[in-house]
Amino acid sequence: MPRAVAGPEIERLIQLLARLPGLGPRSARRAALHLVRRRADLMEPLTSALRDALDKIVLCRTCGNIDTRDPCTVCADPTRDRSMLIVVESVADLWALERAGAAPGRYHVLGGTLSPLDGIGPDDLNIANLVKRAHEPEVKELVLALNATVDGQTTAHYITDLMRDTEVKVTRLAHGVPVGGELDYLDEGTLSAAIRSRTPF
Amino acid sequence: MPRAVAGPEIERLIQLLARLPGLGPRSARRAALHLVRRRADLMEPLTSALRDALDKIVLCRTCGNIDTRDPCTVCADPTRDRSMLIVVESVADLWALERAGAAPGRYHVLGGTLSPLDGIGPDDLNIANLVKRAHEPEVKELVLALNATVDGQTTAHYITDLMRDTEVKVTRLAHGVPVGGELDYLDEGTLSAAIRSRTPF
Repeated sequence: MPRAVAGPEIERLIQLLARLPGLGPRSARRAALHLVRRRADLMEPLTSALRDALDKIVLCRTCGNIDTRDPCTVCADPTRDRSMLIVVESVADLWALERAGAAPGRYHVLGGTLSPLDGIGPDDLNIANLVKRAHEPEVKELVLALNATVDGQTTAHYITDLMRDTEVKVTRLAHGVPVGGELDYLDEGTLSAAIRSRTPF
Repeated sequence: MPRAVAGPEIERLIQLLARLPGLGPRSARRAALHLVRRRADLMEPLTSALRDALDKIVLCRTCGNIDTRDPCTVCADPTRDRSMLIVVESVADLWALERAGAAPGRYHVLGGTLSPLDGIGPDDLNIANLVKRAHEPEVKELVLALNATVDGQTTAHYITDLMRDTEVKVTRLAHGVPVGGELDYLDEGTLSAAIRSRTPF
């Protein structure tokens, strides 16, 4: 067993940093050293940023977004198209769509996808609340922005079935060639979908 | 410009996380989300670990190690061979040697290597203090555990010159084949050194 090289406080910091995604034991050690070296301009601000975030972060009770206010920045934004709900699997996906600045509506975060193999059913997701929101008179369209995986598509079908007896239109993201993508590197499913959904030039 | 997707507190946390080595803007975002999701078992402990470390971390005035006590754990360890000083470039190197549990002596951290091109001279490093420590009667050997780079070797030669008028023996780490290394992937310099320093089997 390797000897502890520093006091228990530093070892504990390294262990916790190693649990962040993208950092392993070695890079956590480097990160800890980096923090200690940049005490004033990184370690102190990071500590207080974490403290601030801990004090203020809440889950938006409307859509499930993570923010420092409830309702969140997106739900409270008066310029959003209130007739469109964009259904995403996770807050990470919501943030990705927001970074693209592409989505005019508000969101609904499911908190995962249906996954019978992992024992994740409708009650484990934020679906009951979605149905309730979809029945609000102002909502005209659900955009299913789910991953193009088996679980994502299973969830999309399940939600579509739930909406069958309503007036709400259910749409999904287009399949096709990624912008900047090279055809040679794309799978056949994507290429077939791109041909089927070809658009006038 | 992408829209801010969350409150300023979260954006600030992401920006600071992105400055850790090994994390970029995208992985910092993932790390921030991960922290928020694991509020109780990761975000809170990490915040207090940073707070603790900030409160307690000091530089060892003897060797330059980073620790929560001064003299540091290594310098204060009564089982260490006090006749041997292991000279390293950085605290990261000290920690690497300690993890290997291979070094019986105490350390001296230079804080860099001589680098005329970058304008780093002897006065920029912790060298004056090394000379003082090397003149303590109990010190019999300096082990130069410096990187096998041009700057590392320049520094090694400089320190060796400084020790020329003393009784202190100056040694350096062995060159050779890394344990587990494959000859086919090693450079000629390492292979030549390994042949020259061959040992009886």
